Amino acid sequence: MLKEMGKKAKNASLKLMNITAEIKSAGLLAVAEALKANADTILAENKKDVDAFIAKGGSAALIDRLTLTRERIYDMAEGVLKVNALPDPVGEVLGMTKRPNGLVIGTKRVPLGVIGIIYEARPNVTVDAAVLCLKTSNACILRGGSEAICSNSILVDIMNDALTSAGFPEGSLQLVRDTSRETAKELMRLSDYLDVLIPRGGKGLISTVVENASVPVIETGTGNCHIYIEKTADPAMAKDILVNAKTSRPAVCNAAESLLVDASIAETFLPMIAKALQPFSVELRGCEATCRILPEANHASDEDFYTEYNDYILSVKVVSGLSEAIGHINEHGTRHSEAIVTSDYAAANRFLDEVDAAAVYVNASTRFTDGNEFGYGAEIGISTQKLHARGPMGLTALTSTKHIIYGSGQIR
Amino acid sequence: MLKEMGKKAKNASLKLMNITAEIKSAGLLAVAEALKANADTILAENKKDVDAFIAKGGSAALIDRLTLTRERIYDMAEGVLKVNALPDPVGEVLGMTKRPNGLVIGTKRVPLGVIGIIYEARPNVTVDAAVLCLKTSNACILRGGSEAICSNSILVDIMNDALTSAGFPEGSLQLVRDTSRETAKELMRLSDYLDVLIPRGGKGLISTVVENASVPVIETGTGNCHIYIEKTADPAMAKDILVNAKTSRPAVCNAAESLLVDASIAETFLPMIAKALQPFSVELRGCEATCRILPEANHASDEDFYTEYNDYILSVKVVSGLSEAIGHINEHGTRHSEAIVTSDYAAANRFLDEVDAAAVYVNASTRFTDGNEFGYGAEIGISTQKLHARGPMGLTALTSTKHIIYGSGQIR
Repeated sequence: MLKEMGKKAKNASLKLMNITAEIKSAGLLAVAEALKANADTILAENKKDVDAFIAKGGSAALIDRLTLTRERIYDMAEGVLKVNALPDPVGEVLGMTKRPNGLVIGTKRVPLGVIGIIYEARPNVTVDAAVLCLKTSNACILRGGSEAICSNSILVDIMNDALTSAGFPEGSLQLVRDTSRETAKELMRLSDYLDVLIPRGGKGLISTVVENASVPVIETGTGNCHIYIEKTADPAMAKDILVNAKTSRPAVCNAAESLLVDASIAETFLPMIAKALQPFSVELRGCEATCRILPEANHASDEDFYTEYNDYILSVKVVSGLSEAIGHINEHGTRHSEAIVTSDYAAANRFLDEVDAAAVYVNASTRFTDGNEFGYGAEIGISTQKLHARGPMGLTALTSTKHIIYGSGQIR
Repeated sequence: MLKEMGKKAKNASLKLMNITAEIKSAGLLAVAEALKANADTILAENKKDVDAFIAKGGSAALIDRLTLTRERIYDMAEGVLKVNALPDPVGEVLGMTKRPNGLVIGTKRVPLGVIGIIYEARPNVTVDAAVLCLKTSNACILRGGSEAICSNSILVDIMNDALTSAGFPEGSLQLVRDTSRETAKELMRLSDYLDVLIPRGGKGLISTVVENASVPVIETGTGNCHIYIEKTADPAMAKDILVNAKTSRPAVCNAAESLLVDASIAETFLPMIAKALQPFSVELRGCEATCRILPEANHASDEDFYTEYNDYILSVKVVSGLSEAIGHINEHGTRHSEAIVTSDYAAANRFLDEVDAAAVYVNASTRFTDGNEFGYGAEIGISTQKLHARGPMGLTALTSTKHIIYGSGQIR
């Protein structure tokens, strides 16, 4: 069955390669309108998912992620309008050179083709991911979680009606409605039709996709981010950055999970930071030296320093200086976002050079690693791999290039 | 065992991230010198491989690919000097913007990290691939074929001596000396240490890697390339381009495998082209209409139009016009290189827009799809996937980016 969907998507993608900006915009505007106009129907279908999930004993946090409200639907529609208003990256010629033999070789930005997205329970991803793919002229096949199947089905049906009426080719947007594990595996092996597969969700989902996919994957997400307070750090700035990075939204991937402090300032900085974290009930898990200075801290295991808690927990390690801090981060980090707080010019530059991560900060919170904060206007995810795209992925991450060559009879 | 190699490579890659241009250049110059100085030793080891391969009954063509001569060793050394002389892409800051909150965000070109290369019998790939990886400050793990193990071992030993004496970190260049299938599979699953895996070789090798790798792969190579002669084509130009694309080097991936001709000119063009191909003894496999016009042609099966012959064979199809030609190419091609010969402005533009391939040509031979011909100075392979790199891959295809962010205490 997925093979048929793949074929349809592939055919649609060839038509989408040259869809006009007018049709694209009309389609996205129609999607935004249709979402608002059909809010009642969406809410009714969403209620089926939520009721079933509650009956199965789902946790409060997950119920909240699954639940749509009229306001959330309007927010989704607003998001569609925002993406529609972004500049269209497709078709841009990035450069053109004339070779000595007279060949003129240009590099043109084109869609990737067919994008697969595998994600978990949040139905807003259905709209969000579809719209980013379509804005960049890609066909997409969505495969959401079983908990949200009624919501996802109605959202895709509504979007498809709107897209078709605006002139989008059939097969531009498809949803895998059989949410068994088998269809997920099948999607991961659909390399004849899919150009890329993007998993959005927890660590388990992402590693299953990386392990099993034959389709090229863009790995997103996991962030074991560090704040390193170097000995010349401004105390107030260090405290503000650490508290913001740890507590402003602990469940997201750019939140800080680990604090490193230079030994020479640990005696004064650690108590100050512990005090600042107290109102947020952050559990501290420290190395030996940390626990000597902060008797209230628990002892960290080796595992702790590799852990993305996504919670009000912080691992803490006292380090001898810059070299140990960089070494520790490169060993334990997930190459997502890493920050140093310092007043030392050379230390700042060495940290920027030597830390291996998608985003390396001097004197700012890791929480800024985000497509909107970086000025991309939208985000399909945060890549933690080095191939194709690294860090927050905006619209251009959903494009490829092709070489266009103008000749006059050249042979080799 | 591969895990240990992976760890060593990872450690080396962290040091290579900030290796100076001076050390890099000294290392590559030393490699070139050492290859020439040790030519006798290399030839002696290569003879062991060649003798063993002959004893096993290897084909003449493959024996030729495996055999080194003094001249080929000197050519390899020249190649190293050429790569050394190319501009270093690493460290370039591609852009830097100031956000409204004062954060300054730059995008810097950095090495990929650790690159794995799996390849077949040609020992020159050992030097070529290693030098491209090292020039871009990447550590690399090479895994060549068993037929070339003595040659590859001595080449890597000689290069490593030269690199170490110039100051490269240990582990920058490693060879998997156990050439069993198991180590190849293990390398494909080494995602904790490898940032990318590039297969170089035949279709079988590439599809094994794509099927089995958990490491991100850059797919290279296969080319079922078409020459489409549109009804307004200049006859002499069409003939020259087709003959060049088919016969100048039929075994390579950018050679033409299939000819499409508009029906309205087929009666005159096909006999002319058949005559031009006669001196090269090219076997023609045609559709029904082709065989009616060219009685000497064999009948093509459906399979023929999907086949990369890499040989003096050409499939031929008469098409009704531009739309059928584009449809046929998008269905049967491998997205490598495709050409139209035409005098019609609109047809040229439509072909450039609608054909989905890494390189799309108007009035030139597909044989130009090559890193050197495109002006990149070197080539690690030709990507036929859409992620990360598409078409000929020069040095920049072996790099990633990282975001460097200069703050002054910003929190979110």
